[in-house]
Amino acid sequence: MTSNIEVIALSGGVGGAKLVSGLAKTLDPTRLLVIANTGDDFVHLGLHVSPDIDSIVYGTTGRNHPVNGWGRADETWNFMEMIAECGGETWFQLGDGDLALHVLRSDWLRQGKSLSAVTCDLAAALGVPFRLLPMTDDSVSTIVESDAGRLPLQTYFVREQCRPKAKGFTYQGADQAVAQPQFLEALEDPALRAVVICPSNPYLSIDPILVLPDVREALAATRAPIIAVSPIVGGQALKGPTAKIMAELGFEPSAAAIANHYGDLIDGFLLDEADSAERDQVLDREVEVRSAPIVMNSPKDQAVLAREVMRFADERQPA
Amino acid sequence: MTSNIEVIALSGGVGGAKLVSGLAKTLDPTRLLVIANTGDDFVHLGLHVSPDIDSIVYGTTGRNHPVNGWGRADETWNFMEMIAECGGETWFQLGDGDLALHVLRSDWLRQGKSLSAVTCDLAAALGVPFRLLPMTDDSVSTIVESDAGRLPLQTYFVREQCRPKAKGFTYQGADQAVAQPQFLEALEDPALRAVVICPSNPYLSIDPILVLPDVREALAATRAPIIAVSPIVGGQALKGPTAKIMAELGFEPSAAAIANHYGDLIDGFLLDEADSAERDQVLDREVEVRSAPIVMNSPKDQAVLAREVMRFADERQPA
Repeated sequence: MTSNIEVIALSGGVGGAKLVSGLAKTLDPTRLLVIANTGDDFVHLGLHVSPDIDSIVYGTTGRNHPVNGWGRADETWNFMEMIAECGGETWFQLGDGDLALHVLRSDWLRQGKSLSAVTCDLAAALGVPFRLLPMTDDSVSTIVESDAGRLPLQTYFVREQCRPKAKGFTYQGADQAVAQPQFLEALEDPALRAVVICPSNPYLSIDPILVLPDVREALAATRAPIIAVSPIVGGQALKGPTAKIMAELGFEPSAAAIANHYGDLIDGFLLDEADSAERDQVLDREVEVRSAPIVMNSPKDQAVLAREVMRFADERQPA
Repeated sequence: MTSNIEVIALSGGVGGAKLVSGLAKTLDPTRLLVIANTGDDFVHLGLHVSPDIDSIVYGTTGRNHPVNGWGRADETWNFMEMIAECGGETWFQLGDGDLALHVLRSDWLRQGKSLSAVTCDLAAALGVPFRLLPMTDDSVSTIVESDAGRLPLQTYFVREQCRPKAKGFTYQGADQAVAQPQFLEALEDPALRAVVICPSNPYLSIDPILVLPDVREALAATRAPIIAVSPIVGGQALKGPTAKIMAELGFEPSAAAIANHYGDLIDGFLLDEADSAERDQVLDREVEVRSAPIVMNSPKDQAVLAREVMRFADERQPA
């Protein structure tokens, strides 16, 4: 089976979007398939919000907010002001322009379109140059098991600002969900060059993809090398609660611990030069570990890292 | 039965909102019941839009746009810009702040709340001092029978800018709808002081209320005088397509023709001083006709007209 896909990237939101931007400039973007986590998706004020899909769309088309790490640049907030005046819920901020994606997505889903079709149409309209698809068209909800109870992801992440202590995660609906067929097909393609696990939170962004039926088996069976990029540098998460969660789960927050989390799923692991001493802490001896500057502060950094990842994949023979 | 309602006003959007503002300042507003036309309601981009309810809310709480005649003052349009970028429909403009009402209304309706309950909650939150209720909680759609076919109201009014030639109107769903019970109860109250038909379009704003089951009978039976204010001055509509529609239906656009449209439903008709010569053209001799300055260009004008209407009602014994 030939899928015409050269590289698959598994991605959460902002960090993943940066590496995806680099890959899209390094490769023929029409042959790059990005599988977005949708375990963060939720219905808020009756609108279907897909935070990671939207972060990837905004981040790869120059629309992302330069500082916030979420939402759009040049956003206005009149909608939220009126929501507050009307006594509606205000803990989750929806910008005026951002709202268009949620309203259209919700409307199209109610009309019977799949989330994949909605995502393709919005991505095409907004100039996303690669293929962007949700990990599944079914509903999967990441739940944080915490000392404050079982919290839906956005409640934990946004409303509670990641304050509760995480004890574990469940991915509600995952066992009944159908993994994105184009993803599974592309993994079977002998011409597939690489699978890239972006520097996203492993628990909140990547595991929801990995636990879908048939995904681990398909990743184990693919001929292409699987390369993960560390979301931890110098013991700190580049963004978000990854380090905090690792500590709460009893792991030392380190790049090596991320590699060990993925275990024999991956063939190569790219950590930052600052962490090169951690190579020996990667337990699976079949995982090749390389170091490079992995912090992406500019479009140039994104492209440099993308080329580094592709060189790594091309030189790494699958185990 | 006592309803504690002193005055009922039947209202469309902007013109009605002006007289309602005046009535709310002239009377104890908690004893003023405003019944809003919802024949204009429609679902757009998956959102339930109630144009007349919103015009009344904005117009009576100082939020209305001073020039447009619809929407909010100080509105921004980032949502519509992104809708356009995403390839969504742009013929119906939804402002960023305005959107909050449509999103909350749609969400609450989907949760099973009635349109009456939604309207009460939004009106209370936004400081509407009187009782504002939709004419019905059921779906009624005003359809314009035109030379361009059967057009839903917003398609005719907004998308087609009232260009098609009107041949008649149907109020889809009206025969199955339940008229607002608080409206019918208030009409039965012997203490009711007046029913005011606001200077709104008779075909598009008032008739949808009048055709609901039991409404004409209840209006005929009420002890309170029914006073209508002309939406036509000097042969022109104060706003909107009333005069154009009248001409297309074969009537001379005049205040008297409005009175004749309502016929024996009303007890009193207030037309502008400019049209006082038309008194004799009002066919029903039991309808008392008075003239006054009815153009409302300021809050003061609104209050003056409201007092004039109430004086008229108090002096007019029901037929």
